[in-house]
Amino acid sequence: MSVMVDICLVPLGVGVSLGEYIAACQKVFEEAGLSYELHAYGTNVEGEWDQVMAAVKRCHEVVHAMGAPRITTSMRLGTRTDRTQTMQDKVESVTRRLAVGDEAD
Amino acid sequence: MSVMVDICLVPLGVGVSLGEYIAACQKVFEEAGLSYELHAYGTNVEGEWDQVMAAVKRCHEVVHAMGAPRITTSMRLGTRTDRTQTMQDKVESVTRRLAVGDEAD
Amino acid sequence: MSVMVDICLVPLGVGVSLGEYIAACQKVFEEAGLSYELHAYGTNVEGEWDQVMAAVKRCHEVVHAMGAPRITTSMRLGTRTDRTQTMQDKVESVTRRLAVGDEAD
Amino acid sequence: MSVMVDICLVPLGVGVSLGEYIAACQKVFEEAGLSYELHAYGTNVEGEWDQVMAAVKRCHEVVHAMGAPRITTSMRLGTRTDRTQTMQDKVESVTRRLAVGDEAD
Repeated sequence: MSVMVDICLVPLGVGVSLGEYIAACQKVFEEAGLSYELHAYGTNVEGEWDQVMAAVKRCHEVVHAMGAPRITTSMRLGTRTDRTQTMQDKVESVTRRLAVGDEAD
Repeated sequence: MSVMVDICLVPLGVGVSLGEYIAACQKVFEEAGLSYELHAYGTNVEGEWDQVMAAVKRCHEVVHAMGAPRITTSMRLGTRTDRTQTMQDKVESVTRRLAVGDEAD
Repeated sequence: MSVMVDICLVPLGVGVSLGEYIAACQKVFEEAGLSYELHAYGTNVEGEWDQVMAAVKRCHEVVHAMGAPRITTSMRLGTRTDRTQTMQDKVESVTRRLAVGDEAD
Repeated sequence: MSVMVDICLVPLGVGVSLGEYIAACQKVFEEAGLSYELHAYGTNVEGEWDQVMAAVKRCHEVVHAMGAPRITTSMRLGTRTDRTQTMQDKVESVTRRLAVGDEAD
């Protein structure tokens, strides 16, 4: 089962600058060989369920090891059995509609 | 590593009445022997990371098997290394403050 | 338009004990005259959209005023035009199914 | 008070293809004159709190008017009083760390 997740990991007890922790998570996704894309309020990751979830767990482990005593993560998880759909497909299904100007309808 | 999650699983393509799918997830948590509690917009579950995440995966599998072609789940995941804290502890840490009337300060 | 939200407000830069901030938000909902219920990983609030959202904004303002330089909130928002449904209704639509033992089917 | 949100609006009762509804929300953000950016599992929007939240409400109204009887939205909301930070700043604070290879430290 493939999954697409959107994850926003928030370390607590380490002040307000979280960039280094987020960067550490990007490396986890990279090392896991997953397809991922950072955005301004999270990271999209896609792959097989077990691999993606192992990477999410690894993010928590790594960020705790960096000194964060507490972590709260918010995550969306999407699965579908009707067809495969990549991150790129999802964005295009929206932008295509905007491009053809269906707002004129 | 213990984790507390708050999960809201949303099956798509099955209409607007989702109670039976949510009930099926409650049974998954029950059968997994996890501590869980339903609320009006999700379910809190606590336990060892791997057990909780296996149950979350099982929820997706069960709901797809019930006929939902697509699922989008939103989830919060909390871990901490400083101390253990149950669902009950978390609620009490807030209600205790309200009970003693610290709003008078 | 009525809305039901599930809100989990997380102040950053104030350490790992967040109970007093969450308690302050409960008071905001109380003072706003809204129906709300704390759970282990958030608070459910229901009411008219504008009133609920004004209270959410007030929570951010109050928690900043308490000294938190940064806040990240995760929220679910549910609206429906087909019928009204309270927080209690939502929980009962699930527990009723569990009570009658439809897992035997 | 400025806010950055990450919003993922999910219409229920309209099948599994949601692209047209998401496109409609992009138009709402565009017409509101807000800065926004679509990603594979949501849209980032930044601006003044009241303007952003008015647009979120408008999204629910528009998607209901398109025929969706029920909507569940998941949203992250970030505010800070210590400094201003744009969507672009947030992405750069992470990618800069990756570029300079601070994993070697």
